[in-house]
Amino acid sequence: MSNNPQIPSYWYNLKFDQGINLDPVKPQFDDSYMRSQSLLLESDQSYVKIPDPVMRLYEQYRATPLKRAIYFEKAINAKSKIYYKFEGQNASGSHKLNGAIPQAHYSKIDGFEEICTATGAGQWGTAVAYAAQKFELACTVFMTGSTYDRMPQRIALMEMLGAKVIRSPIKEPSNEYTRNDPGSMALATSDAIQYAINNKQTSKISHVYGMVMHQTLIGLEAIRQMEEIGEFPDVVIGCKGGGTNFGGITLPFLKYKMEGKKDITFIAVEPVENPTLTKGEYMYDYVDFNKLAPETKMYTLGHFHIPDPIYAGGLRYHGFDPLLSKLFNVGLITAKAYNQQEVIRAGKEFYQSEGILPAPESSYAICAAIEEALKNTDENKTILICISGHGHYDIQSFAEGLKG
Amino acid sequence: MSNNPQIPSYWYNLKFDQGINLDPVKPQFDDSYMRSQSLLLESDQSYVKIPDPVMRLYEQYRATPLKRAIYFEKAINAKSKIYYKFEGQNASGSHKLNGAIPQAHYSKIDGFEEICTATGAGQWGTAVAYAAQKFELACTVFMTGSTYDRMPQRIALMEMLGAKVIRSPIKEPSNEYTRNDPGSMALATSDAIQYAINNKQTSKISHVYGMVMHQTLIGLEAIRQMEEIGEFPDVVIGCKGGGTNFGGITLPFLKYKMEGKKDITFIAVEPVENPTLTKGEYMYDYVDFNKLAPETKMYTLGHFHIPDPIYAGGLRYHGFDPLLSKLFNVGLITAKAYNQQEVIRAGKEFYQSEGILPAPESSYAICAAIEEALKNTDENKTILICISGHGHYDIQSFAEGLKG
Repeated sequence: MSNNPQIPSYWYNLKFDQGINLDPVKPQFDDSYMRSQSLLLESDQSYVKIPDPVMRLYEQYRATPLKRAIYFEKAINAKSKIYYKFEGQNASGSHKLNGAIPQAHYSKIDGFEEICTATGAGQWGTAVAYAAQKFELACTVFMTGSTYDRMPQRIALMEMLGAKVIRSPIKEPSNEYTRNDPGSMALATSDAIQYAINNKQTSKISHVYGMVMHQTLIGLEAIRQMEEIGEFPDVVIGCKGGGTNFGGITLPFLKYKMEGKKDITFIAVEPVENPTLTKGEYMYDYVDFNKLAPETKMYTLGHFHIPDPIYAGGLRYHGFDPLLSKLFNVGLITAKAYNQQEVIRAGKEFYQSEGILPAPESSYAICAAIEEALKNTDENKTILICISGHGHYDIQSFAEGLKG
Repeated sequence: MSNNPQIPSYWYNLKFDQGINLDPVKPQFDDSYMRSQSLLLESDQSYVKIPDPVMRLYEQYRATPLKRAIYFEKAINAKSKIYYKFEGQNASGSHKLNGAIPQAHYSKIDGFEEICTATGAGQWGTAVAYAAQKFELACTVFMTGSTYDRMPQRIALMEMLGAKVIRSPIKEPSNEYTRNDPGSMALATSDAIQYAINNKQTSKISHVYGMVMHQTLIGLEAIRQMEEIGEFPDVVIGCKGGGTNFGGITLPFLKYKMEGKKDITFIAVEPVENPTLTKGEYMYDYVDFNKLAPETKMYTLGHFHIPDPIYAGGLRYHGFDPLLSKLFNVGLITAKAYNQQEVIRAGKEFYQSEGILPAPESSYAICAAIEEALKNTDENKTILICISGHGHYDIQSFAEGLKG
């Protein structure tokens, strides 16, 4: 239980609660290097109790702020109210810590001595590094090449937390990729899985696979916070990488929609350079480049897809969480893709008006909020966006993007 | 009035409340370029009402968190309780925004079209840039050379807010300093004053001079927050640059000590490279290098003192606020100086344990808190520190400092 009544004591398990049957992963595979994850995928409770050691760490930085963006509304001449939930004020600078803490906890319980993972822009890697040292686990992070080269501050941050950071794709004689390749999350995931397979005391932990549930405390908190001020969203917006931040803010609200209690529009926002939902296919695909993990049914651009290096390194993943993919497939979720120039300008506008520098990833949600807020509708709408993280390590991207 | 009862509606004016006569500045000078400041120095109220436009902006990010550092206490085996007040979650990333907002407000009222200022590590410059655009004022920032060269992210941040950032010392035929000089706050202050004198529509606003009062809402909030949990500090610690963050957290507590109600130890913490209090003299000196501003009586190393470039660029000012200097002179405040290697390690320890990356400046306060918390005393003490800002733009300093 939490000592702070503002923090939910449970994660919300929409998959079980709404009776959603996902197409099985194929083939079934030896998941000994990622045991705790598959365990959680199959929970038969609608609300999963948060373990005490996890809750103690959540209490360090939760509840996160929910605020009305009054200055931003004014700056863009919004016709709707805009609320934002801000997840950037913890040790990782993003929502990712919500998922890294329980995975480190379960890996410790499972007897692992080390955790390893893949990271794009570094938010997830920082979250894992922080969680690892809290549970006295060693930590190795494989970082996609394009962001490894671009964000030395993120590397220093992870190293300060005691993690070993390795550029991906790793250079091996058998590997056709070289040190200069920009890499992808699929490649980094392969590197991490191979590392875990080679090191039996190492648990490979994931930023997506089944971990969306851990993020639902964002949405659960938001519901409580909005109810306190007598509000409820008509539109919920999140940026779309693998799906954790988007699923975290939306799943608890999706319950209302799926049970016919509220009509809510959900918008997943992605880069035009990596248009998984707006141009991808719903099919079986691998989460990693080298096909070490099984195939799951999801929206995908192909595990071999290597998108251009973009400012929002965290949105370069080729796929989408299987549960969220199913919800998108049946039309419960919509998607939008934006150009990174307009996204960076939206992020700047938010910083100037609200005083919070959003991550480029989060700025995609802001960009969609602007479009929604300017629509002429019969009645004023209430928009809720998730600002998944801060952009302090993305200043170079803002500086470059704003010159264009 | 604030809509949020947690935010104080008044600044605390200890100078008037405790009847402190400061030695006058000499000579009296034409202060037309910094009118609003001298006005505030002479207020004859113990509590000065915060103007509504200022309060609206304070509400964007206040009240700031006050937390007990339970993980940090454990990590260092503390014998005392440690509480921290964190000021790093606003647009400037530091306490400085508390002072920049009212100065921009008064400059607007005074009819100025632009504000200019000097900044060390960039926190103050960012605060001024943010406040300027909120009041639709142009903004020019003179940044000390050593941090200008070291912190391109800070420059990008200020430029994103619409400010013009100029390296100081500026290169002029009449100026004996060159582009390669590390500069000092005194030199940057001269550059800013000269710019304001040359541009009649520009107000030179200050990060120190008389502005400590605006920061007292840190201490006023802390008192309220500690009382809510039934605590009161025996020791209050802040890092010491010009004095704004230190004065902000201490002045409201100093009232208790000066009125004989509580026995509290106040510790101002400074770098051994710039030991204003531990090695400086209490005497009349100029706040700026080129003697454009008048002399004030304060602890100083000499306005011509150019300290080494250190990680904590914000602590390179040669002097100390006149009011705080007087309080130090009569023994109400104590001082400590630390080596930056141990300071950086203290900051890392705080990040690992509490999940907040402190600015190098703030890490001086943390370093002193460690020493205090390890002391054997008859009874457990309660320590309160001000974490004046975040360290996200100081990663390079941490990376270098931790290698040593």
